[in-house]
Amino acid sequence: MNIKDRLLEKLLISKGKPVSGEKLAHELSVSRAAVWKHIQALREDGYRIESSTHLGYSLVGSPGKLTPGEIRAGLKTKIIGKDIRYFEETESTNIIAREMAGRADEGTVVIAESQTGGRGRLGRKWISPEGGIWLSIIIKPKIQPSFAPRITLLAGVSVAKTIRSFGLQAKIKWPNDVLINGKKVCGILTEVGAEIDLIDYCIVGIGIDANVDTESFPDEIRDGSTSLKKELGHEIDRIGFVHKLLLEFEEIYVEFQKEGFHSILEEWRNMSATIGEWVKITTHAATIYGEAVGVDSEGALILETGEGKLEKIVAGNCEHLRRP
Amino acid sequence: MNIKDRLLEKLLISKGKPVSGEKLAHELSVSRAAVWKHIQALREDGYRIESSTHLGYSLVGSPGKLTPGEIRAGLKTKIIGKDIRYFEETESTNIIAREMAGRADEGTVVIAESQTGGRGRLGRKWISPEGGIWLSIIIKPKIQPSFAPRITLLAGVSVAKTIRSFGLQAKIKWPNDVLINGKKVCGILTEVGAEIDLIDYCIVGIGIDANVDTESFPDEIRDGSTSLKKELGHEIDRIGFVHKLLLEFEEIYVEFQKEGFHSILEEWRNMSATIGEWVKITTHAATIYGEAVGVDSEGALILETGEGKLEKIVAGNCEHLRRP
Repeated sequence: MNIKDRLLEKLLISKGKPVSGEKLAHELSVSRAAVWKHIQALREDGYRIESSTHLGYSLVGSPGKLTPGEIRAGLKTKIIGKDIRYFEETESTNIIAREMAGRADEGTVVIAESQTGGRGRLGRKWISPEGGIWLSIIIKPKIQPSFAPRITLLAGVSVAKTIRSFGLQAKIKWPNDVLINGKKVCGILTEVGAEIDLIDYCIVGIGIDANVDTESFPDEIRDGSTSLKKELGHEIDRIGFVHKLLLEFEEIYVEFQKEGFHSILEEWRNMSATIGEWVKITTHAATIYGEAVGVDSEGALILETGEGKLEKIVAGNCEHLRRP
Repeated sequence: MNIKDRLLEKLLISKGKPVSGEKLAHELSVSRAAVWKHIQALREDGYRIESSTHLGYSLVGSPGKLTPGEIRAGLKTKIIGKDIRYFEETESTNIIAREMAGRADEGTVVIAESQTGGRGRLGRKWISPEGGIWLSIIIKPKIQPSFAPRITLLAGVSVAKTIRSFGLQAKIKWPNDVLINGKKVCGILTEVGAEIDLIDYCIVGIGIDANVDTESFPDEIRDGSTSLKKELGHEIDRIGFVHKLLLEFEEIYVEFQKEGFHSILEEWRNMSATIGEWVKITTHAATIYGEAVGVDSEGALILETGEGKLEKIVAGNCEHLRRP
């Protein structure tokens, strides 16, 4: 983190109580003049910081941006979010993450207030205005590329648990969407860099319609979309949400590495919106209709077709056709 | 390509015949003074360029470097090598290729005279001194990640065919080495960037011990290694080799996209050093001994174990234990 972010983190940690310029200068190993310069820069970013000659600086108002300083203060993770790259606007956090992944530490998070070229699966456009949460997590699990679908499912569980902790009944639609009341509130795009038999890095892109007005979305997706703000009836604290999300993700990811996928799969099944549904699956090769009866240990969807045959779907597009 | 590389290409194409400074300036859309400046720069790079006030510039000697100008002049491909990035020395051409792959055009080639951190499969070190050919090709085939092993095999065929055109009996050891007289002369490292069900880009790293002295290699690999220079008894024309290699690769890659993998697999089998051998395969999960009896349509090795059971090996380390 740069000096400005570290300064912000210190003001946030002191929770409105004044911190002296001298103490800040000492802790950040910079001059008091440099502290003052960064305080001015934070004020320009929209932070309200009071200063008193005797007491020092106190933070009394924040613009609520997802800057590294805001996120680091109060983040309880050990790996995820240790390094945070922040953009007011970028093409796509997954693209940034992919370009830096080879040299980045595990747990690095790329976050943006808005994306100009946000993407969903298979190159589909993903609308990413201000107010949403658009982030990518770089992880480096020692797994084979064929195990990558598990990472998507694991990420879905972490998002659904986070949303549930805010009092909303989130469910997971196979393989990569999180729904509230049957409407999409989050998409997950997992990308891997790999040799033939070993993953080098994995990028988990998570896009959440947090404080977003889905009314402004294009016709074809408006009715199927919702936001946390809409479901709750008020804006959510995005910083608090990211704290919770990164912690949930880390806990599940650590469990995955230590204990394997078994109990995570159980959690996934319990929050599934897809199991029990009559679905239409479109793959590269075919379109298949059937009842989603389960998900196997690799994260593949198991369908029972009209003729009573079981089909295993590793990847594909899934539409829920009715709600039992 | 930059002006210097384009200038070099023009001098090379004229094959020693003088080209006037005025013509070069016109064709490159620069001043005659700029032409002179770049001629000086080429001379500093080791090119011998004669100049005559009346006739212009003629190239009479080249240091034989694999610069974009050298490679572009005489390259007969349509896609592969349209864009070439050149380094005197770099950590690893695969790393460079990976970082630029998202935004690079298909067919972009990254090439270096030497690598400081060349890598083989699974993070193994790959010694890459001057005199070798170290390059990475970026391709963007619309295939599923599970089809990536085919790209390794396809690349192996292109290298073996190129070496054979220089009069040496190259064979392919499954999955990614090219051998001459049972000794390794080339390794191929395929890396992919992918979503769960679609490859975004594929990087084919090819390392060839061309004019390399394998005597200077560490003990543990010296006896198993050879070079084109050693096998031929004289240095090869590296630029001519790269021309041929990129053309062979393009032809096989285009065939793969148009006609599928069938006839490429036939070529692979015909040049295989592994089929018929008693081999030891080490995978993440196990060590398996058996006779290599074939390669299936996905590029997996088929082993017949001592008990007469057939085993399919998608990825793993392969050692030839005897030569029948």
